Amino acid sequence: MIRATDEWVTFERHFQQIIQLSAKTVGQNRLVYSPSWVKAQAALIQFGQQAGLTAMVDHYGNVYLDLPGEDDHVIATGSHMDTVRNGGKFDGLYGVLGGLQAITMLKTRFGAPRHTLRLISFSEEEGSRFNTTFSGSKYYALHQSVGPLTDQNGISFEQARSQAVEQLQTISNIVVKRPALPISFTELHIEQGPRLINTHAAVGLVSGIVGQRRWSITVHGVSNHAGTTPMNDRHDALQAAVTIIYQLNGLARHLSPNLAFTVGQLTVSPNTSNVIPGTIQFTIDARHADDRLLDQFEQLIGETLNRQADPQIKCASKRYGKDLPATFDSDLLAQNKQLAQQLSLTSQIMASGAGHDSYGSKLFSVD
Amino acid sequence: MIRATDEWVTFERHFQQIIQLSAKTVGQNRLVYSPSWVKAQAALIQFGQQAGLTAMVDHYGNVYLDLPGEDDHVIATGSHMDTVRNGGKFDGLYGVLGGLQAITMLKTRFGAPRHTLRLISFSEEEGSRFNTTFSGSKYYALHQSVGPLTDQNGISFEQARSQAVEQLQTISNIVVKRPALPISFTELHIEQGPRLINTHAAVGLVSGIVGQRRWSITVHGVSNHAGTTPMNDRHDALQAAVTIIYQLNGLARHLSPNLAFTVGQLTVSPNTSNVIPGTIQFTIDARHADDRLLDQFEQLIGETLNRQADPQIKCASKRYGKDLPATFDSDLLAQNKQLAQQLSLTSQIMASGAGHDSYGSKLFSVD
Repeated sequence: MIRATDEWVTFERHFQQIIQLSAKTVGQNRLVYSPSWVKAQAALIQFGQQAGLTAMVDHYGNVYLDLPGEDDHVIATGSHMDTVRNGGKFDGLYGVLGGLQAITMLKTRFGAPRHTLRLISFSEEEGSRFNTTFSGSKYYALHQSVGPLTDQNGISFEQARSQAVEQLQTISNIVVKRPALPISFTELHIEQGPRLINTHAAVGLVSGIVGQRRWSITVHGVSNHAGTTPMNDRHDALQAAVTIIYQLNGLARHLSPNLAFTVGQLTVSPNTSNVIPGTIQFTIDARHADDRLLDQFEQLIGETLNRQADPQIKCASKRYGKDLPATFDSDLLAQNKQLAQQLSLTSQIMASGAGHDSYGSKLFSVD
Repeated sequence: MIRATDEWVTFERHFQQIIQLSAKTVGQNRLVYSPSWVKAQAALIQFGQQAGLTAMVDHYGNVYLDLPGEDDHVIATGSHMDTVRNGGKFDGLYGVLGGLQAITMLKTRFGAPRHTLRLISFSEEEGSRFNTTFSGSKYYALHQSVGPLTDQNGISFEQARSQAVEQLQTISNIVVKRPALPISFTELHIEQGPRLINTHAAVGLVSGIVGQRRWSITVHGVSNHAGTTPMNDRHDALQAAVTIIYQLNGLARHLSPNLAFTVGQLTVSPNTSNVIPGTIQFTIDARHADDRLLDQFEQLIGETLNRQADPQIKCASKRYGKDLPATFDSDLLAQNKQLAQQLSLTSQIMASGAGHDSYGSKLFSVD
């Protein structure tokens, strides 16, 4: 491992300063536009200004720290500052402070670069306060705005945004601006799964983000008395749903061991111990790097639902999410692989199973 | 069918008067000690007094209408006046008014009987307001009292009981009394299943009540990210629970087609579409007339839970209900069978899959 002592001390100090903002809560709590989120973005601006970088903030609260180069091309890195409720220490923040450290180290060693180097700390990626995800990177890269949403306390996105961002825009020497897009964007992120630990690899080289589809399945049967309804006279929605899930699990495993298949949500109605369930609703989340395989699985879902022998059991399926797989830039991937080798870091090429700013904003296809 | 016109008109008038008390709600709503329950029991007392019967009420609000006989032996019939929320028209009320009509008809035709004939309208059987069932018949037959329970509005059983029963106890000519037990009790009740319709039988002759057991099953796995956790690294509590339920359903059907097996309640934690479920809780309700068969099924449940191959999936089972099967008096059953034949009513001997006052109070074994 490489360690430039002074810079690691600085990284550690920055890191501790931000995570201490959530010291009084369980886990990290920097919901977008909350007081701790404002303090974190303000601290980051201060870190950047202390390191001699140009600090910018846009109307969504995305923070940009630039080391200006000789030409207009921008090479960017970064991640998001917000967290889920009770989040982990590294999700988002690691990529923000890691990017800042990388730019600072390059500045110290090599001075002014040819291309501008930019650290981006996106305002929001998690979707934990408002029912929207990637709002920061989408505002930056796609110029997309958020609709009229409110949080669970009834505070509108617009009200929360303007109050929070105003505090950042009044910091001294800050430039209020949404800058031009970079020619490349690299995001450092903690893995949210066990692959690297299981293979003892130091870093993952991310080839893309898996495609993801989500369905809501409804199984309607006939609710009835659990004691007086004979077994051969039942139209038990739960038993039908259980059979469907059991079969789909087998089909998913048979289709590909890499097809991630999850039934995460399931509700029973009326959900009373002595009443045969009349309606079951459940979700399916399926992910795979190959979209054709997700097509096949979607067909298998339909066939499984249609295979009901009991005409009084009625199944309906509604797909409410479809994200195509993303393939990241192969040149950057090859460069990163080479870098890992030069640094003697064991690595593994892998697809990310989770969404990230790189994906939500389509920053991966900007080059 | 037999029809004594005047008495049927009276029955119909009584029936309409009681069900009209719920005219402004969906279905019948006579939760124990509610205003409509008080009105219904008060109306019944009036019906009885008009028919020349002696009306009594005890401290739990059970109403007794006696046609005094020559000796102290009492032959009783009846059912309960309370309903579930949004209940049916016939559950309970049919047995109460049917019993009243039978006694009235016998009085008209034959005058004073040898044994006292008693109609009982029990206060509560359903358990829909307070977390207790058969509280009326248990108070009468077993002298059992209800503990310190409250309804969902925080009103105590004791407060609700005393306020409601006081209104009945102040009706003129009412006798406040919990009378002695009868030598036999017969309960007329609507079937709550399709057996009679399916076999085109006019009446069911109930040989007993099935045994019933209830278990709460907990399946603990490991909650994790639905996108980043490989399939072979999951400990998905829902998939484990689904497999268990699927297997138990097969085992139950194989053990006996008459074993009623119901998973009526199932909850998922955290119940989020993109999170692998960490904990599932579900209930099992199993009923059969033969208690040894329920023993066998209980063993199969244990074996199925213990068959988990994944050591990170932990299952626990807790039985929270066990009611032994009840066999009703064979002499009464034989008499009723003979009566059905005399009246040219097609009949079928069957076990009841639901509990009733006859069972909860053990009135079936009083003779």
